Amino acid sequence: MSQRLLRLIPLGGLGEIGKNMMVIDTGRDLIAVDCGVQFPEEEMLGIDLVIPDISYLVTHRDRLRAILITHGHEDHIGALPYVLPKLRGVPIWATRLALGLIRVRLREHRLLEEANLAEYRPGDRIRLGELEVEPFRVNHSIPDSVGLAIRTPLGTVIHTGDFKFDHTPVDGVPADFARLARFGDEGVLALLSDSTYAERPGYTPSEQRVSAALLNIFHEAPGRVIIATFASLIARIQQVIDAAVRTNRKVAIIGRSMEQNAQIALELGYLSAPPGVLIRPEEVNRYSGREIAILTTGSQGEPMSSLARMASGEHRLLSVVPGDTIILSATPIPGNETLINRTIDNLFKQGAEVLYSRVSEVHIQGHASQEELKMMLNLTRPRYFVPIHGEYRMLVQHAKLGQAVGLPDEQIFILEDGEVLEITEHGATVVDRVPVSEVYVDGLGVGDVTSVILRDRRQLASDGIVVVVFQVDHRTAQLVDEPDIFTRGFVYSGNLPVLIERARHAIVEELRHEYAPHLAEWKVVTDQVREALARFIWDQTRQRPMILPIVVEV
Amino acid sequence: MSQRLLRLIPLGGLGEIGKNMMVIDTGRDLIAVDCGVQFPEEEMLGIDLVIPDISYLVTHRDRLRAILITHGHEDHIGALPYVLPKLRGVPIWATRLALGLIRVRLREHRLLEEANLAEYRPGDRIRLGELEVEPFRVNHSIPDSVGLAIRTPLGTVIHTGDFKFDHTPVDGVPADFARLARFGDEGVLALLSDSTYAERPGYTPSEQRVSAALLNIFHEAPGRVIIATFASLIARIQQVIDAAVRTNRKVAIIGRSMEQNAQIALELGYLSAPPGVLIRPEEVNRYSGREIAILTTGSQGEPMSSLARMASGEHRLLSVVPGDTIILSATPIPGNETLINRTIDNLFKQGAEVLYSRVSEVHIQGHASQEELKMMLNLTRPRYFVPIHGEYRMLVQHAKLGQAVGLPDEQIFILEDGEVLEITEHGATVVDRVPVSEVYVDGLGVGDVTSVILRDRRQLASDGIVVVVFQVDHRTAQLVDEPDIFTRGFVYSGNLPVLIERARHAIVEELRHEYAPHLAEWKVVTDQVREALARFIWDQTRQRPMILPIVVEV
Repeated sequence: MSQRLLRLIPLGGLGEIGKNMMVIDTGRDLIAVDCGVQFPEEEMLGIDLVIPDISYLVTHRDRLRAILITHGHEDHIGALPYVLPKLRGVPIWATRLALGLIRVRLREHRLLEEANLAEYRPGDRIRLGELEVEPFRVNHSIPDSVGLAIRTPLGTVIHTGDFKFDHTPVDGVPADFARLARFGDEGVLALLSDSTYAERPGYTPSEQRVSAALLNIFHEAPGRVIIATFASLIARIQQVIDAAVRTNRKVAIIGRSMEQNAQIALELGYLSAPPGVLIRPEEVNRYSGREIAILTTGSQGEPMSSLARMASGEHRLLSVVPGDTIILSATPIPGNETLINRTIDNLFKQGAEVLYSRVSEVHIQGHASQEELKMMLNLTRPRYFVPIHGEYRMLVQHAKLGQAVGLPDEQIFILEDGEVLEITEHGATVVDRVPVSEVYVDGLGVGDVTSVILRDRRQLASDGIVVVVFQVDHRTAQLVDEPDIFTRGFVYSGNLPVLIERARHAIVEELRHEYAPHLAEWKVVTDQVREALARFIWDQTRQRPMILPIVVEV
Repeated sequence: MSQRLLRLIPLGGLGEIGKNMMVIDTGRDLIAVDCGVQFPEEEMLGIDLVIPDISYLVTHRDRLRAILITHGHEDHIGALPYVLPKLRGVPIWATRLALGLIRVRLREHRLLEEANLAEYRPGDRIRLGELEVEPFRVNHSIPDSVGLAIRTPLGTVIHTGDFKFDHTPVDGVPADFARLARFGDEGVLALLSDSTYAERPGYTPSEQRVSAALLNIFHEAPGRVIIATFASLIARIQQVIDAAVRTNRKVAIIGRSMEQNAQIALELGYLSAPPGVLIRPEEVNRYSGREIAILTTGSQGEPMSSLARMASGEHRLLSVVPGDTIILSATPIPGNETLINRTIDNLFKQGAEVLYSRVSEVHIQGHASQEELKMMLNLTRPRYFVPIHGEYRMLVQHAKLGQAVGLPDEQIFILEDGEVLEITEHGATVVDRVPVSEVYVDGLGVGDVTSVILRDRRQLASDGIVVVVFQVDHRTAQLVDEPDIFTRGFVYSGNLPVLIERARHAIVEELRHEYAPHLAEWKVVTDQVREALARFIWDQTRQRPMILPIVVEV
């Protein structure tokens, strides 16, 4: 009989924030947990989204039993529309709210009809080949979030999803400590646990603190209250509705994605509002400021968001006016600080009062801090521990927490995307690495922005472009006239026409030193011209624009 | 007799961090306080530096009595080499250490000989026309920092420079509370006070906390300790030397700018080290890890810094190895978080232990927090209060502190760069706005990156460029053949050659609908082609590359 083994293969989310996807493979059956997108980093110029590389799943499509979703955030479900066409028919399991949000996205991509969707609830046991999956309740910043207990022939793997422990969450359903403790009693082979806030000491406070802060602000505000948060933060939307009810304000939701999410959450019972509290955006101006609360997006300073447009007076319906109180109820995602700060500045300039996380307790993160992470480790008492969901230093800090609760170093694995951790009865070790290139989504295309194009864009962005057009007689293969030079995004402190004139001479001079080229050799000549011109421009301006020589045969 | 008046005109640093410069103008005499650079924001693609617009000083050069420097940081002295050629002969006053640092920069730009430099010390009184300036001691993250009491015919203006109050600073010289209190007793017309940390509650802790943390780390570290901080943070360099002496480590300073600053501070007596403690970088490998501390730059994740190169194994002398302890002793400057996080991740991947501000108290900022800002307001009890040095929301938060200590709203002015606050015996009001365009330094040039070029670079960065070359017969003004199309940084998920072929047809089709153009009308035709091609590409790809039509007459 062959040796039993289990492979854990992160396809995304380890060594980065976002595009979460974890493969669990027994050799006979395999499943994937989550299928998220990542928002691009600054230097990925012009990229819209990054998604996991699913080559491994495509290769082993015949053994892939399901994709299991832990909750309905974009970094866990957002890549489904892009990968499903390559994994036709695979069952997707999710909780009720997450399923509702997945349906919207698949409908937009005209993939809903062919999708194979199924609902699970905490406590269900789903048989998937020789694997059995049981979702359990965790707290997070969206209702209906679960972790997964995955029973394998070698033992139980606990995947926490994104989680925190909140004894008084907005939706009233605390994480299921008891179930976690029972998994621990039964024996846990491996714990895969959320590292997003592993750098943060202590406990993540209860959402109740935000409820109290909001209620206070709603009471005191002399005019309208405008709350910007993530479109998917259903719990925050509920808190705003609750505070509005208690202070006799109506609530208008503005922004397509948030309206859509709220609509689904209302339909499915994850959001509740007394009749008459929710009003349409068009109705806002029928009420006085003290009767109004507005929920909207733009908490990350996105220039096209409703909030940014309200701040700059470009919104169709509403403008920010003196007397408004604006609440940015979100943590800045690293990289967004500049845009967020600019939005705050613009709102202050409009005469509004602005409350944001540095000056007021108007947001609490959705992830466990260090003491909760230790609690998860102590409840489940795993043999092996793999920190997941985080940039490398977060995984390192989380690993230190594992050491702190007594796990030996050789039972803790800091993995990066693509590394294959193989567990047998004798031990665990990284045995392999599967391909995990970055797959980019740009415009309508998937996977088509290569690193060459990104490099080109960076050069264009930094120093612009210089186009050189040569006219070459197609019979004599001789230059006809001096080349023409065009620039875009290129800058020179002196006289640009004079510089270009000198560059033209420099090129002609360069070519004069050479044999008269045959037409077939123009490729060589253009390379030579590119180098000569780059050198000339660098000497004169200390800049390195892209140089594009174009040969026109006449 | 004409009415006495005083004008306060910020040329930089209000509504932004950096390029600090404040003009104080009595109508007869004027002075400028500080002359700093700003590091560019993300979307200022390819820009090296931003400097203040000194048009107002150039216009009134005959009345400009001096530029007064509060301390030697780049955001206070860095623009001097770029503006002095336009303000020849103007006296520059600074404290001893700042003067040393200014000299280095002017020498690099070959401006030292012609510069008119003068030294002042706290308590000196410098007569400048009808103005008299008295520097007073403040604490900041560089020694020899001062604020300025500026006596004018209308009353005394207090400019704090960058400051905090530290009763036990590293250099042993606390801020001069007593002098500030006496200014308050004599009567202060206007307080211009540092807002950089106006969002932070409480008091900024003493630098002693960092000394204690460093000493502890130096004791515990099993190998080398590598400390990255700002090149100009002389106080931190002293703390590292002190901790090294107490733990029997040698100190090597690596990185040109930090070596240079340390050298000047040592020569001028602002930094002290027992003989034999400082060693050259080449000597590091003669010692065991426990005998070594390395000071270097790169705390902001700069990819070309010594630290980044040590982390990636690209440094000439040293590599980061397991057992090293790395300390990032600096606050992330907003916008740099991504680069810093990536550096931390890379260091962890090298097997080093990494301590940074989120997980350890290895840095304390150089600016006053809210309680200190209130103390400054209460010590000086000004008639008018102008928050300076900060982005708009920081100025707003600082203004609120002014309200909190009892100043009426009409005596507090939130100004932005270029606004002219005019104070007379009857009141104060914003009367005018002087030109303050952003002046960019890029490569060798000053002031030459216009907003058009920045816009072009942004478009190039986002979607690349498509170049269309038309050959037109110079006699018939007819198209010769179909146009040629070239792309750079442009991406398409389908078959790019096919797309280009279809684009060529689309262009020919577009032109066919038109009259046969005369050559003089090609400008119109190229605009039309640009629009048609943009529309075609948008429809096909949802992207908006820059389109550059080039007409070649043959």
